[in-house]
Amino acid sequence: MRIRMATWVKSLQDHIVRTMEQIEAAAPPNEFAPSPAPPTFLRDAWIRPEGGEGSSCVLADGRVFEKAGINVSVVHGKLPPKAQMAMLPDHPSLPEPTGTVPFFATGLSIVIHPRNPHVPTVHLNYRYFEIEDPETGKPKAWWFGGGSDLTPSYLDEADAVHFHKTLKHACDQHDERYWPDFKQQCDRYFTITHRGECRGLGGIFFDDLTTTSPVHAPPDGAQGPSAEKIFEFVKSASAAFLPAYVPIVYKHMNDSWTPEEKRWQQLRRGRYVEFNLVYDRGTKFGLNTPGARIESILMSLPETARWEYMSPLGREGSGTREEKLMEVLKNPRDWV
Amino acid sequence: MRIRMATWVKSLQDHIVRTMEQIEAAAPPNEFAPSPAPPTFLRDAWIRPEGGEGSSCVLADGRVFEKAGINVSVVHGKLPPKAQMAMLPDHPSLPEPTGTVPFFATGLSIVIHPRNPHVPTVHLNYRYFEIEDPETGKPKAWWFGGGSDLTPSYLDEADAVHFHKTLKHACDQHDERYWPDFKQQCDRYFTITHRGECRGLGGIFFDDLTTTSPVHAPPDGAQGPSAEKIFEFVKSASAAFLPAYVPIVYKHMNDSWTPEEKRWQQLRRGRYVEFNLVYDRGTKFGLNTPGARIESILMSLPETARWEYMSPLGREGSGTREEKLMEVLKNPRDWV
Repeated sequence: MRIRMATWVKSLQDHIVRTMEQIEAAAPPNEFAPSPAPPTFLRDAWIRPEGGEGSSCVLADGRVFEKAGINVSVVHGKLPPKAQMAMLPDHPSLPEPTGTVPFFATGLSIVIHPRNPHVPTVHLNYRYFEIEDPETGKPKAWWFGGGSDLTPSYLDEADAVHFHKTLKHACDQHDERYWPDFKQQCDRYFTITHRGECRGLGGIFFDDLTTTSPVHAPPDGAQGPSAEKIFEFVKSASAAFLPAYVPIVYKHMNDSWTPEEKRWQQLRRGRYVEFNLVYDRGTKFGLNTPGARIESILMSLPETARWEYMSPLGREGSGTREEKLMEVLKNPRDWV
Repeated sequence: MRIRMATWVKSLQDHIVRTMEQIEAAAPPNEFAPSPAPPTFLRDAWIRPEGGEGSSCVLADGRVFEKAGINVSVVHGKLPPKAQMAMLPDHPSLPEPTGTVPFFATGLSIVIHPRNPHVPTVHLNYRYFEIEDPETGKPKAWWFGGGSDLTPSYLDEADAVHFHKTLKHACDQHDERYWPDFKQQCDRYFTITHRGECRGLGGIFFDDLTTTSPVHAPPDGAQGPSAEKIFEFVKSASAAFLPAYVPIVYKHMNDSWTPEEKRWQQLRRGRYVEFNLVYDRGTKFGLNTPGARIESILMSLPETARWEYMSPLGREGSGTREEKLMEVLKNPRDWV
């Protein structure tokens, strides 16, 4: 499973990077990227001295994308009991730690911040984690986690429906209990608690998905699906990323925008920063890991962001399109 | 003491707001504030339903200042044992909580982010906290905390020396042990741990300052200074803010700047956001307090900020002025 998941995320990374480069090539040169040659991703491979490797693909000066990061990592090593303890709250399937154990982790992580305020930001993460029994060499515990969610500055209901429907379709092929559960987990996870609002329009999110996860409980029988079956689901869900997002980009990438709309996008970017630095599990874990590659962890932040004191934009009762978005962020909707 | 400290911070707030407005009036209208009338602070008074009041003075569209917040709060109420427990790690002088106790807190908090990359950002906070013995009505525990620190985008050594010297002078008048201790506490507190760098050039920082604080230990005798004496020090230190900062503003406010210098300032602003959202004690406390006034807490964030992946600016070995600043942020210097 290790090798197959790593192979899958690498090929998916390659595919998505190429697709984003095609989108860049489909846009004419502009003030952000005046060169006639279409912008391409910077491909940055790295080796982890403690074991493993990764590759960061970053686009920073795009015509369409302000900042896009598409990262793969494949790491392995030793996990001390303390690190296992720290994982317990989010991973009830993890056995009580008795000593240092070998671990393996691989995943794909994407954040794309477009220039145009009418093109939504998107985020994706899929990962596989395994702890090995040091005596038998077999997996002692394993799980998949991940999901994908959409963060627009302006609400286009058709886009929201399309994004959610595409993900639901990918879920339903495997287990009809997945989508309602993972949609709800997504809305809960991406909440900016101190603001009482969601970061975006949601999508799907799950963690600790393994044979014995609650979502796999009977009526389907006492036996949950095999790792194989769950991997098939993860492949469908992650493969749904491009069909869920790309049509939205093409639909809006040539929309014109005003400085006011840009200002609102920058304020929404500020909220994105608040969520990622204050709440995001992966970011917090990364910042607390000595020797972690800070540049890769904080690649998820937008290139530019803005904070205004008591901003009038989006205020309740203003009757504006900004308020319309806020309304949905405060009360997550069922889009399907 | 309660009333005198509250009176002091209110009058200091008033004085500092007026001074900043004079600086705005001394600058000609520009692209940021094209109106011929000089920008003034928005004065926003608020009442805390649970007890207390405050006043936020904010300037958002200045000629000189991008965003300036000068806030006073005077709050009182009941502190449950859980909240007291949460304070214990940072306040060893607090007695073990036995039940809910009345508390009182007042303070002044300032963050000023200028437009010009050659004018440093500055931060100030001074506060007084008291827990009352519910039976006698007398203070059961009390302390002062606070400090002031400078965050430039470009290093001007003369500015750094002036700022630190002014604060040292204010400290030395009261106790020669203050400055070396509070300078060191400041460098330690304002560290962006995940970057291995300080937020700025430091200044002074102290917390839990009371009669029995370690800095007041013998040789001065077993008896520490009275609340009165410590209050005198707090007044001197906070009154040193304007003489420490204002000359630096006047010196640089008419410096010309390039887009590259602005870009570097925006990247430094990004670091400011990282420190405040990930580490700052007051911000974290505020974000975790249900019903807290988020707009006032996050007023400390700059209006605009920037993150680049693997930015070439300030890189080691580049021999640039940006690198020169980084060198000092990585290795705090003794400026006096």
